[in-house]
Amino acid sequence: MFEQLGLIGCGLMGGSFALALKRAKLVKRVVGYSKSPSTTERARQLGVIDVAAPSALLAVSGADIVLLAVPVAASEATFKAIRHGISSETLVMDVGSTKGDVIEAARNGLQRQFASFVPAHPIAGKELSGIEHAEASLFAGRQVVLTPVKTTLRSNVQRATQVWSGIGANVVTMTHEEHDGAFAAVSHLPHLLAFAYINGLAAQPQGERFLSLAGPGFRDFSRIAASDPVMWRDVLLANREHVLEQSRAFRKALDDFEAMMTASDLQGLELSIAAASKTRAAWKPATDTSSQQQDN
Amino acid sequence: MFEQLGLIGCGLMGGSFALALKRAKLVKRVVGYSKSPSTTERARQLGVIDVAAPSALLAVSGADIVLLAVPVAASEATFKAIRHGISSETLVMDVGSTKGDVIEAARNGLQRQFASFVPAHPIAGKELSGIEHAEASLFAGRQVVLTPVKTTLRSNVQRATQVWSGIGANVVTMTHEEHDGAFAAVSHLPHLLAFAYINGLAAQPQGERFLSLAGPGFRDFSRIAASDPVMWRDVLLANREHVLEQSRAFRKALDDFEAMMTASDLQGLELSIAAASKTRAAWKPATDTSSQQQDN
Repeated sequence: MFEQLGLIGCGLMGGSFALALKRAKLVKRVVGYSKSPSTTERARQLGVIDVAAPSALLAVSGADIVLLAVPVAASEATFKAIRHGISSETLVMDVGSTKGDVIEAARNGLQRQFASFVPAHPIAGKELSGIEHAEASLFAGRQVVLTPVKTTLRSNVQRATQVWSGIGANVVTMTHEEHDGAFAAVSHLPHLLAFAYINGLAAQPQGERFLSLAGPGFRDFSRIAASDPVMWRDVLLANREHVLEQSRAFRKALDDFEAMMTASDLQGLELSIAAASKTRAAWKPATDTSSQQQDN
Repeated sequence: MFEQLGLIGCGLMGGSFALALKRAKLVKRVVGYSKSPSTTERARQLGVIDVAAPSALLAVSGADIVLLAVPVAASEATFKAIRHGISSETLVMDVGSTKGDVIEAARNGLQRQFASFVPAHPIAGKELSGIEHAEASLFAGRQVVLTPVKTTLRSNVQRATQVWSGIGANVVTMTHEEHDGAFAAVSHLPHLLAFAYINGLAAQPQGERFLSLAGPGFRDFSRIAASDPVMWRDVLLANREHVLEQSRAFRKALDDFEAMMTASDLQGLELSIAAASKTRAAWKPATDTSSQQQDN
């Protein structure tokens, strides 16, 4: 389907995308670049990329598909660096967890080539980062959200849909505003709460002792607190307004719970927990394309 | 090792204990009782108990080991109901997630037989409750915390240690004060936060839409929100002071994060997330008895 993938950022996400495209025979050659030459070299040694490029611009030269997999704060500088290697024939995508800021960065960075860019957010990942943890199946059965704008080339949205579908992902399309509001609620806030929970615990004199007693509930609840600091710093800042709005909704619900605890309100407490329990028990991960496809 | 287990409460925890003892050949016969006769009958049909008793007192009559696996708020009434079936030869245990309140309930309920009671908290469970989900391996490789008091029979503490070890659990002994403080931090607060998070999300007009987009991070973070409402109502009330204290530590950490977000403090945010990430990545579930054994 594609001749050459230009990969900027050879980490967990970028590396997994390259491996997935190779396995699905959707690309013939992968040229990779990372800010750190040792990372690029490691990606080449592991067979994730075929050629290590000395610059982002050289990585995209001759590529018909380009993936930016860098911390979202580095997006604009990266788009600027590759601008002259992009043509109207190139499909350019990212993997950022926030979309409004990346679209702005692409508009400024890519300028005339902005229409080639299809903003993408694969809902996949691990708490382990780095090329060593890349795997071809990372996106299989996962959702990928595309947030094209009015000027985005329709042909590129189609090609983006085909390539993600081709590696087993379920493609959902929505506006970037909708994306950033929704993911503040279901991803960014949980990360913030998990970070705060761990730091609140560790700050106590008995923190270590407490941690030594923790069980499976703690394990799952706090797993995302082990996520990458630079990536999440950028996400929490880029989507700050939505995240703070979600935090206010959370604090209101927490206040309600604590008021019921203080008042020994057995019935209120049981009903509120039952509501949460019912909502969570009814939730199913979105893996079925047919029920998740969006038309906006 | 034991002739007869008297099981009060044929749910997930009680049923799993009965199955585990049977599989390890630590008991010859299980006589069970649940408040709901249909539950007791279902436990008998499933082979979890051998005999369905018509009352709690009859379930413990002739038993040399008794397990209370009822919501903690029902403890005192249950101890009272079985008091006359308990002798100084009987080992009585519970499985409650809070210990100070259960000890008080046992003191009032068992009276002269209080010394037979060894308070126990297995750090195991699922978000699914009910006898249908009971399994013999639920406690294997898990920690069980025993919180005996000064007057508790030493021989019963030994027998309790043997029986939990015999079904594969790692036994830790500590005071009930230490237990309740530690589990407020590593279990009860995470449950409270997960309940509040789900209700804060569901209260929004777009809540359902948001939920449909949630991925694996959400799945793990919110799993414990699907827990049993009556059990968790009782836990949050019984251990209220400790839980509210932990919530204050959490809120302070959350305030710090939000202040850094508002101030666009990149460095502070990255360092704070890195601290959380490092703490969580270094955490290991406690499955090794040798490193966990306590001597207080």
